[in-house]
Amino acid sequence: MRVLVVNAGSSSLKLSVLDGDDSSLMVSEQELPAPGGFGDVMERALRDAPGVDAIGHRVVHGGDEFTGPLLLDAASESRLEQLAELAPLHNPPAIAAILSLQSVWPDLPQVACFDTAFHVTMPPEASTYALPDAWRDWGLRRFGFHGLSHAWASRRAAGLLGVPVEQLRLVTAHLGAGASLAAVSGGRSVDTTMGFTPLEGLVMATRSGSVDPGLLLWVLRHRHLTVDELEDALDRRAGLWGLSGVSGDLREVLLAADRGDARSQLAFGVYIHRLRAEIAAMVAALGGLDGLVFTGGAGEGSARLRHEACAGLGFLGIELDEQRNTSEPSGTRDRVVSRNGGTPAVLVVQAREDLEIARQVRAMLTRPG
Amino acid sequence: MRVLVVNAGSSSLKLSVLDGDDSSLMVSEQELPAPGGFGDVMERALRDAPGVDAIGHRVVHGGDEFTGPLLLDAASESRLEQLAELAPLHNPPAIAAILSLQSVWPDLPQVACFDTAFHVTMPPEASTYALPDAWRDWGLRRFGFHGLSHAWASRRAAGLLGVPVEQLRLVTAHLGAGASLAAVSGGRSVDTTMGFTPLEGLVMATRSGSVDPGLLLWVLRHRHLTVDELEDALDRRAGLWGLSGVSGDLREVLLAADRGDARSQLAFGVYIHRLRAEIAAMVAALGGLDGLVFTGGAGEGSARLRHEACAGLGFLGIELDEQRNTSEPSGTRDRVVSRNGGTPAVLVVQAREDLEIARQVRAMLTRPG
Repeated sequence: MRVLVVNAGSSSLKLSVLDGDDSSLMVSEQELPAPGGFGDVMERALRDAPGVDAIGHRVVHGGDEFTGPLLLDAASESRLEQLAELAPLHNPPAIAAILSLQSVWPDLPQVACFDTAFHVTMPPEASTYALPDAWRDWGLRRFGFHGLSHAWASRRAAGLLGVPVEQLRLVTAHLGAGASLAAVSGGRSVDTTMGFTPLEGLVMATRSGSVDPGLLLWVLRHRHLTVDELEDALDRRAGLWGLSGVSGDLREVLLAADRGDARSQLAFGVYIHRLRAEIAAMVAALGGLDGLVFTGGAGEGSARLRHEACAGLGFLGIELDEQRNTSEPSGTRDRVVSRNGGTPAVLVVQAREDLEIARQVRAMLTRPG
Repeated sequence: MRVLVVNAGSSSLKLSVLDGDDSSLMVSEQELPAPGGFGDVMERALRDAPGVDAIGHRVVHGGDEFTGPLLLDAASESRLEQLAELAPLHNPPAIAAILSLQSVWPDLPQVACFDTAFHVTMPPEASTYALPDAWRDWGLRRFGFHGLSHAWASRRAAGLLGVPVEQLRLVTAHLGAGASLAAVSGGRSVDTTMGFTPLEGLVMATRSGSVDPGLLLWVLRHRHLTVDELEDALDRRAGLWGLSGVSGDLREVLLAADRGDARSQLAFGVYIHRLRAEIAAMVAALGGLDGLVFTGGAGEGSARLRHEACAGLGFLGIELDEQRNTSEPSGTRDRVVSRNGGTPAVLVVQAREDLEIARQVRAMLTRPG
């Protein structure tokens, strides 16, 4: 089954066509002319696309309702409305893409694949905040995100280790502009660092990650910020960018740090400190560790990041092989980068949400009955 | 030197007189008739007190300015003003106590000992939030609290282990109505779970501990709470109390859980999950662990809490001795509760901020020059 995979963000559109054997027949990644608007980007990108049997969409938020992939045909208007209501900030680009493709190819099955769904297996101890009773009735719980990436990375890591994923306790570290960890036990998520929103947890490119709630109360009371200003500050002016004043891109921060820029050195220090702390916290949720998996732009691309993160985690038995860590084999980034046979293993896996989405689409459409 | 130790909170006043050999000559703990007001409680409590040579006060917040104990004599008005400005929410009871005792005993030296001071040794990676540049200029950083307790617990644990504290990596867990962990390396704090305020970190009796900042933005935007309402909810209606609906007291929550109350079972589950995660995060800051020290009301009093916390931390090498964990020797709670010679050790130490304060007072007043 040939699948078109659509990853529609607020400022970019990524399309790929995967053949039945997962080989890539087309990849197209484009910036959008206006935030949230495809213009004719979609049409142009698909003009020369090979014919496909089904379409899979990455959708950020599935809420409590959607715990697995969701079949959306031209008739399932109500489900689209549910999606839009669920996360008015996160889901609109995906919904726009679904509607656009329904008008182009009304007969093709479309499947929504959720970033939250992988985390529905979290136990209540991990998904529950210690909030006032009434607040939990508002649906405030940890959802977790990046689930398509964590799912792929954990399954791929098991393949590289030659051990069934059911027998492994893995921490998957998706480190890109957004960043989160998942604790994956036997192939199922049992904890993660992002929460009700993708703002919690690790230091990110421009997001603060976790912050003392009392500090936010202080800012509201003493600096009189509006909610919009507060959100803008924590979402878009914090993280590596806020700390370094140089960039939200880890590569730029490291270049500046190596030139002696003190703020960039501190930014990288805080980033690594928090990464080590949260990795250890995920291991506590697992009760032990068989493998640590780096994925996402910075996770795959920065041997320095992996070196520094692992340098402080020797107490978990982690030992990098510096040669493997710094040299990419030709053709793939996917590899074990810890010492031969060392436990826990450390791995690099290229983020391939598209393969995970295609897998979910095929599983849904070939399901018996 | 005989020292009167004063611990003035918003709703209670605790006084103790320690003789030169640290033996206790008097202990008095009383509820205050009005929040923040001593009435004649102080006068009555001191009527039959033995004569003392100096007075030491527990002061919650020393900010950036006060990194060690501070001598306050009748003339040092300006320093008192600085203290009041620094933390208008936290320091007033202590300041009221200082003024009250200056009028009774104008000739006695009084020393302010700060809960934040122990944590001034934290490296910038641990004390810096990934906030927008301008916010850090407002002085927003991790201070940490309970420092007098963490200082005492770490030194006492070293004594029980017969190893100089300079050679140990300890996690001290102060678990009472408020709760925080410290990572103590060679006797110095290198990380802690409380932050700019005492709201961050672990689940507490009525405090939420850490919460997704994005969740707070959602509440502000969609439930239109005022800052006061938000603070009241997170400070006084959350934590064990908010989760269980039964009590903020761990003992009551455990009794209800054992009677089959599902909400209390969840409350304890969340409490333990977060405690294990944060202990592991502190170990990451230390790069390894020689001892885990439980102190504070729940930390000292609940063998069940220690059992459950340690049960998930076997991957750190932690092994409780169940017999030692459940049986208190006569005369003291202070003991090793892990297997004989096991590393890391697990210890119970009674919280004795008073002894730490007396030590700091003596050190300040007998300093040469």
